[in-house]
Amino acid sequence: MLDDTPTAQLETILGRLNEALEQGDAKAAAALFQADSYWRDLVAFTWNLKTMEGPDEIRAMLEAQLGAQKPRDMRLDPNETPTASGDVLEGWIDFETETGRGHGYIRVKNGLIWTLLTTLTEIKGHEEPKGIRRPMGAEHGHDKHRKTWKEKREHESEELGYSEQPYVLIIGGGQGGIALGARLRQLGVPTIIVDKHGRPGDQWRKRYKSLCLHDPVWYDHLPYIPFPDNWPVFTPKDKIGDWLEMYTKVMELNYWTSTEARSAKYDAEKKEWEVVVNRGGEEVVLRPKQLVFATGMSGKANVPTLPGQDVFKGEQQHSSEHPGPDAYVGKKVVVIGSNNSAHDICAALWEAGADVTMVQRSSTHIVRSDTLMDIGLGDLYSERAIANGITTRKADLIFASLPYKIMHEWQIPLYEKMKERDADFYQALEDRGFLLDWGSDGSGLFLKYLRRGSGYYIDVGACDLVIDGSIKLVSGHGIERLSETGVVLDDGTELPADLVVYATGYGSMNGWAADLISQDVADRIGKVWGLGSDTPKDPGPWEGEQRNMWKPTQVEGLWFHGGNLHQSRHYSQYLSLQLKARLEGLDTPVYGLQDVHHTS
Amino acid sequence: MLDDTPTAQLETILGRLNEALEQGDAKAAAALFQADSYWRDLVAFTWNLKTMEGPDEIRAMLEAQLGAQKPRDMRLDPNETPTASGDVLEGWIDFETETGRGHGYIRVKNGLIWTLLTTLTEIKGHEEPKGIRRPMGAEHGHDKHRKTWKEKREHESEELGYSEQPYVLIIGGGQGGIALGARLRQLGVPTIIVDKHGRPGDQWRKRYKSLCLHDPVWYDHLPYIPFPDNWPVFTPKDKIGDWLEMYTKVMELNYWTSTEARSAKYDAEKKEWEVVVNRGGEEVVLRPKQLVFATGMSGKANVPTLPGQDVFKGEQQHSSEHPGPDAYVGKKVVVIGSNNSAHDICAALWEAGADVTMVQRSSTHIVRSDTLMDIGLGDLYSERAIANGITTRKADLIFASLPYKIMHEWQIPLYEKMKERDADFYQALEDRGFLLDWGSDGSGLFLKYLRRGSGYYIDVGACDLVIDGSIKLVSGHGIERLSETGVVLDDGTELPADLVVYATGYGSMNGWAADLISQDVADRIGKVWGLGSDTPKDPGPWEGEQRNMWKPTQVEGLWFHGGNLHQSRHYSQYLSLQLKARLEGLDTPVYGLQDVHHTS
Repeated sequence: MLDDTPTAQLETILGRLNEALEQGDAKAAAALFQADSYWRDLVAFTWNLKTMEGPDEIRAMLEAQLGAQKPRDMRLDPNETPTASGDVLEGWIDFETETGRGHGYIRVKNGLIWTLLTTLTEIKGHEEPKGIRRPMGAEHGHDKHRKTWKEKREHESEELGYSEQPYVLIIGGGQGGIALGARLRQLGVPTIIVDKHGRPGDQWRKRYKSLCLHDPVWYDHLPYIPFPDNWPVFTPKDKIGDWLEMYTKVMELNYWTSTEARSAKYDAEKKEWEVVVNRGGEEVVLRPKQLVFATGMSGKANVPTLPGQDVFKGEQQHSSEHPGPDAYVGKKVVVIGSNNSAHDICAALWEAGADVTMVQRSSTHIVRSDTLMDIGLGDLYSERAIANGITTRKADLIFASLPYKIMHEWQIPLYEKMKERDADFYQALEDRGFLLDWGSDGSGLFLKYLRRGSGYYIDVGACDLVIDGSIKLVSGHGIERLSETGVVLDDGTELPADLVVYATGYGSMNGWAADLISQDVADRIGKVWGLGSDTPKDPGPWEGEQRNMWKPTQVEGLWFHGGNLHQSRHYSQYLSLQLKARLEGLDTPVYGLQDVHHTS
Repeated sequence: MLDDTPTAQLETILGRLNEALEQGDAKAAAALFQADSYWRDLVAFTWNLKTMEGPDEIRAMLEAQLGAQKPRDMRLDPNETPTASGDVLEGWIDFETETGRGHGYIRVKNGLIWTLLTTLTEIKGHEEPKGIRRPMGAEHGHDKHRKTWKEKREHESEELGYSEQPYVLIIGGGQGGIALGARLRQLGVPTIIVDKHGRPGDQWRKRYKSLCLHDPVWYDHLPYIPFPDNWPVFTPKDKIGDWLEMYTKVMELNYWTSTEARSAKYDAEKKEWEVVVNRGGEEVVLRPKQLVFATGMSGKANVPTLPGQDVFKGEQQHSSEHPGPDAYVGKKVVVIGSNNSAHDICAALWEAGADVTMVQRSSTHIVRSDTLMDIGLGDLYSERAIANGITTRKADLIFASLPYKIMHEWQIPLYEKMKERDADFYQALEDRGFLLDWGSDGSGLFLKYLRRGSGYYIDVGACDLVIDGSIKLVSGHGIERLSETGVVLDDGTELPADLVVYATGYGSMNGWAADLISQDVADRIGKVWGLGSDTPKDPGPWEGEQRNMWKPTQVEGLWFHGGNLHQSRHYSQYLSLQLKARLEGLDTPVYGLQDVHHTS
């Protein structure tokens, strides 16, 4: 009798795939995939983050890469049990390549591969010193004049950036820079992180005082040191600041506080950057081989140009500069914008006793936090998920295994469920005149985040204040100008204001490169973020992966890193391995380097 | 057919035990134990740390406690599988009492219980806010003038100890005070930790510079935040200092640095302490209900009185004051003592280029670190243990389940194995004149630690320096006096010295109470530490648990906490639950409060 368990079926097809890969037979391998199939590779096969769509793209990738990568031993992870749901079989896989070891996830439908995720987990001979490879700490034995751990750390702090050059310079020391810095340290890649703030974590501390993370704890872990079991679901900003600060210290990162990058240029002959930074008043020239922007996935603040901004007698701030409500008790505030920051700032101002008006210029996607946690994230990131054996690592990989091209198919039903559950809430918002949307295809929050990084609010209470009129709402009107005393709408109404907050979002991250390097280099890099979904603020053509994030760009030695805590944690793995491979001089043939279709 | 699996057999006897316990039948319960049996209870049944030896003691305890404790539902832990080895069956158990939930470990031999460990894990209605009970962090919704996390923390820091009194005051902020403080915070017990140093972790930082932990990482985790996978096996002192500092911060402890306790007295009427502390120059009077000494299990420094100490022209230091070797390059140093500190200090001095002589006054137990890790700790605390599914929590409980009375029976064979493995090494030491011992009954290091807290060195390299003569050794001689220029032995030899280091150990911890409260109170408490094993420095009678540690003492509201990192982690659980129960006014009938047999 045939053994038709999911395990046996997956073993059969993986066996065939492995045989084709080991024999370098791209055609035979591609023939094992469905017509509408997706192979997402994170660095293991492509030295890129790349989704191949359909057998032709898969075959082309394999033809280019098999020779150098020499994949082998692709098999089911012996520690996991495959599952079946409907006609889809799923399972965890392990494999090796010439240079590394990998892990992944496979879905098979009707005897052919539907989705395949392959990720590089470590480079052979350059494994991280953890578990049985952890360092001894004490050097047993004896050696005259040996240095202590503290002396070595102090020596490194003094020399790196001066007498010795870092291989990697990370500009920006928020969660992105810190998570990447930690992984690079473990991989033995000499790295400096520079940040303009006085302390690690100030990126969070200095924002408006009521801010808490909008993502829950299970989604937010950093690499190596997960939050403890008693950590709050939504971390208050100062608490995450303290965590980042301690993490930076105990992970022994070379983190330069109060340091601003002033200019950078690439020496193509030496293949190194010359980056001028100001470190607490002292000018230092750094010469890293690799330059990483981890300056915030949102890029530089977008402040709209409005007539009358020069005559307005009150204060004007971009949301990123807003210090919180304390100075505005009893004042009139107009907040322009209706996404996360706008809502949070309005609610905090109202709580403190300000008179607040939100000006909604275009529709906003709203999801209630509880509902999102339960329906949107609960299967992967929650106590429920943990109880089901879904560790953070598994959750990250399962999530990564869903191809961007068809992710909306998974997401739409979730958001339809949310819409139904909270129907009364949405009705109340609409009754107040609030303009709602669910993304252009109804796929909701996460795809809005991936496509444009904006256009939504995760409701943690501000919507009730809009509904009951505590936060005044103006929607469906454009802004004509600022007067001396307020904001004038296109129907002539004036909203009196002591303070105008522009919660008007951010530009593309290559804007940072324009400022630091040149507009020419920024244009060569092109737009950062977005998938090419041809939806608002994410113009086509379809690119299939986040533009320029965590992967080679068109500019040698220049990288972008960041995103939310989840992305900072997970994708820092792939970026750190790419950088380590280059440090070690390994062959890293990049497949399918993305063309630039948009410069901003 | 009878089901005679270990599970079935354990279920049978546990069923009988549970029935007897639920029916309040002490006699029937005791009859299920072997003649040479041991029931170790950590707070669950006795509100004490107590080992009952044999059926009579077990019956007496149950007769006293069953009425109040009302144990029930004692059963095998459904998530674990019992094992059999030889004629011993072993398994994890769960149970409840009137007030709490418990966990434990049982060993059965020939159909009767041989050892039983019962521990209290949580108090009903006062569970820690973790996992599904974790706090939300953000308070969704809206509330005018609500305080942020940071404002609340700042308010607490400003008020606690001034307008509000802590329930618990912990004197001493090393790993003991910090681990206990963290658990008390999670249990909602208002607590202040005072420490004389400028920063948490200075207890380690300020010791001699080559110091690393002698216990390995797997043994050293703090509660809630384990060390990451890449943490070194033997943590350098400054690195553990940084970890403790960050831990204190992120666990939100109320930790008063630069604060010395000056005096304390108990108001029996108000049932509270009046403790005068000096906080950075300001005198503050604290009025806690409970006072915990976590001032170091070693107590106050023992400095021998020798003739000529007043005429010696060089420096004299107790090992706890030794700053490390840097100031003594090229100097002559005599170190009196031959235990851990003496060896570490000698090796560091030799490395730095000092001329060092160690004076061994009595025999010392030496174990090589690698051998100890492998043979002594490897089954419970190692990568091997982790690979076998032995988590830190399990290791702690398995270790705690070995009754002190017969622990030497487990230990002796391990040390015989070590002696055999390192026979050449020991021979070389003896050839040099070094006086070796293995504890009075050959049971080695851990029992020496439990009995007297001294008398050993875990070799991390200094022994080779003794063997090759780099560290000069004088043994078998007493010290007659100090001269102006050195140390004079009882045979008249003079050892010239610029520095004399007294690595001569520490007194009993109740010495701290003598200084802070009164000699009378110190005498009522009696000796702290030791088991009453009637071996050197641990006089009888047999007491069966560490004297006065982590459990009620003869002085109301006064407690001792500490020990190595393992004990600070594990026993802080039981002490924190005892304190929480008292805060909540629960009935905590203490069984078998220990008599005082020795005052120091």
